[in-house]
Amino acid sequence: MRSCIETTSSSSDAAADIARAARRASLALAKSTTAQRTQALHAVAAAVRAAEAEILAANARDLEAAAEGGLSPAMVDRLRLSPERVAGVAAAVAAVADLPDLVGRIEREEVRPNGLRIARMRIPLGVVLMIYESRPNVTTDAAALCLKAGNAVILRGGSEAFHSNRALGAAVTAGLAATDLPEQCVQVVASTERELMNQLLACDEDIDLVIPRGGEGLIHFVAEHSRIPVLKHYKGVCHLYVHEAADLDMAVRVAENGKVQRPGVCNAVETILVDRAVADRFVPALCQRFSALGVEIRGDERTRVLGGEAVAPASEDDWHAEYLAPIVAVRVVDDFDDAVAHIERYGSNHTESIITADAAVGERFLREVQSSTVMVNASTRFADGGQLGLGAEIGISTTKLHAYGPMGAEGLTTTKFIVHGDGHVRT
Amino acid sequence: MRSCIETTSSSSDAAADIARAARRASLALAKSTTAQRTQALHAVAAAVRAAEAEILAANARDLEAAAEGGLSPAMVDRLRLSPERVAGVAAAVAAVADLPDLVGRIEREEVRPNGLRIARMRIPLGVVLMIYESRPNVTTDAAALCLKAGNAVILRGGSEAFHSNRALGAAVTAGLAATDLPEQCVQVVASTERELMNQLLACDEDIDLVIPRGGEGLIHFVAEHSRIPVLKHYKGVCHLYVHEAADLDMAVRVAENGKVQRPGVCNAVETILVDRAVADRFVPALCQRFSALGVEIRGDERTRVLGGEAVAPASEDDWHAEYLAPIVAVRVVDDFDDAVAHIERYGSNHTESIITADAAVGERFLREVQSSTVMVNASTRFADGGQLGLGAEIGISTTKLHAYGPMGAEGLTTTKFIVHGDGHVRT
Repeated sequence: MRSCIETTSSSSDAAADIARAARRASLALAKSTTAQRTQALHAVAAAVRAAEAEILAANARDLEAAAEGGLSPAMVDRLRLSPERVAGVAAAVAAVADLPDLVGRIEREEVRPNGLRIARMRIPLGVVLMIYESRPNVTTDAAALCLKAGNAVILRGGSEAFHSNRALGAAVTAGLAATDLPEQCVQVVASTERELMNQLLACDEDIDLVIPRGGEGLIHFVAEHSRIPVLKHYKGVCHLYVHEAADLDMAVRVAENGKVQRPGVCNAVETILVDRAVADRFVPALCQRFSALGVEIRGDERTRVLGGEAVAPASEDDWHAEYLAPIVAVRVVDDFDDAVAHIERYGSNHTESIITADAAVGERFLREVQSSTVMVNASTRFADGGQLGLGAEIGISTTKLHAYGPMGAEGLTTTKFIVHGDGHVRT
Repeated sequence: MRSCIETTSSSSDAAADIARAARRASLALAKSTTAQRTQALHAVAAAVRAAEAEILAANARDLEAAAEGGLSPAMVDRLRLSPERVAGVAAAVAAVADLPDLVGRIEREEVRPNGLRIARMRIPLGVVLMIYESRPNVTTDAAALCLKAGNAVILRGGSEAFHSNRALGAAVTAGLAATDLPEQCVQVVASTERELMNQLLACDEDIDLVIPRGGEGLIHFVAEHSRIPVLKHYKGVCHLYVHEAADLDMAVRVAENGKVQRPGVCNAVETILVDRAVADRFVPALCQRFSALGVEIRGDERTRVLGGEAVAPASEDDWHAEYLAPIVAVRVVDDFDDAVAHIERYGSNHTESIITADAAVGERFLREVQSSTVMVNASTRFADGGQLGLGAEIGISTTKLHAYGPMGAEGLTTTKFIVHGDGHVRT
């Protein structure tokens, strides 16, 4: 349990020690082989399975505190582990072990006219700090993806999962202890002291990237206090645009999936834009279906005229809203340009989808909308690292530097230039 | 000359106006076609050629001020334009026009098991702020690369090139005026007020990336004051490591090229590490050659024993030094690991090269050294966007987020996910 750091009175020293240990571990990890990292991931998966009883006992303590603290049922559900969920956690780690390896991969080799051989080699970023809330599986998911990409990671979870994260961290450490990689490759900070987090966010010499995952408040706090680059997304105000050439049955199905299948996630649909030319057919059909499903509709004036009493009036706030609930905003737009302008103004650079049978219009939407994931005739719910083929996801970025959109192991790496010469000098 | 902003008393308003105008222009630019951008670059090149007289007259004013202000001869040389240099500036813009296009490029297409077609589309970053010193050609080089990549750019040069930059900016604006792209795609901030720069660095809503180019002081200032991500390198402490299996004649030639060919640039060699096993043969040969060339050698104890009076004693500061002058630090190391440890401790993540005839050792060096450019048997002077095949270079990054190493047009772009479905919903 060496890697579960109990902080003392001096958070600043504690943070610097954690960060420095991570940097040292990252240097060893950067020199490790694929076989070593793969073996370490399987060892971690085995250690999680072996620690099932301890993990469930720790989780029970968190659940007890949650019940006393009056945590919402949704939060309790995210926190709860079971033998099946622990097995799932271990299986997820093993699945990351089996993803294709990235570190050391040679890309874009070319020979220059002077005979120099130039290529790029994929390398780890170094040290990652994850700051997250609630779901304890993030502890092992993030540890696995960071190890896969050759990075050391510092994991700082929320107070509600304090004991669960500590038990999972102990399992990871036990797994690493069975390998020749340093245990400090993964450090679970078993303290929820805010001061320690602030001090970690100042360790820009030894930490290369911060990834906060949680509510908008947490992410704003991290972005404002960090001296280290932060990969983040504040919210997902995802749009579905029903174009005049849309298959309207498909549009209703995709709207329903986007809003209802799992309303509490960031890739759920929050606003539906409807082309004026098909509004008189689409809006009533949508209202009928969504009313039957218990979804509240808030519409602009034109939507209200077509939807009648099923539609409450939308305010300016509704166009900015990430409801994460069975509520949807609906607006009738004049045309394609009007829809794109609405997305430019209110969108969050997360995910937007157009429903259209006109392929040229679909391509124009893909080109002109600058969000991190743009779709034609598909549910926004597919905006997820697993669904997009990344194997696993460590987070989503809605700013364009480094990574944009769902981010997997590759987002935790970069490339360096490598050059082979034969005594080449520059003239 | 609308895009040459003269600031008034309110720098904050002026900065916000510049940044907002750039954002608006970037939205138009993101929707532009390859043909439009290529045409615009050729129009800018033509406008620079047409404005030769105005540019040279403006440059003469800067040179006059430089003479009065006592600018160093090296700085004056970097500032000076001539008819040939103006032609070169225009030719560089035209060369960027002819580079392969990036924006809209589809990468990594795949079909998922459920039939969804996933790909990435390369897109511009948005708005770039360049802050630079001295060389006026940066004005047009940066404008060209940003336009190529579909970005709007705000250019803030130094006071010593005030008139030159303004004249070059006017030519760029004249070139853009002959196209259907907004003139605000390129804004030359013809003010060297520091307060305006500070205000620009706070415009994180409308500016996506800051690239400072200049002395270490400027770069530290920008990094400390910016709320926008900064791509930077502080300095280039580049190492040449002479391995025990090196061809020693090659090693002397590459050392000479790295140190002498152009000592004032960031990819010049600053420290030479010599394997103990060959030090008794290499150090005297190096001393003889470098003394003949007038290069000062500062060495550790073992180097001084072998080099005699040609070697001055090196202090701890010498291992950190970017001399940018005909001075070199030399250290005898025990072995490969000792050399790599020295680079880890003192390096600046810029460029390191090993001289060795042992291919396996060369590969190990490429793998284990985490600097942004790593070489075998080649001069560090090749660490340059043009030499590495990027076509042109907008800057060098020695931190690993987004871009690492020399950065060309591609570093000014990112990718978004694009998804083609057929009414796909998630179950």
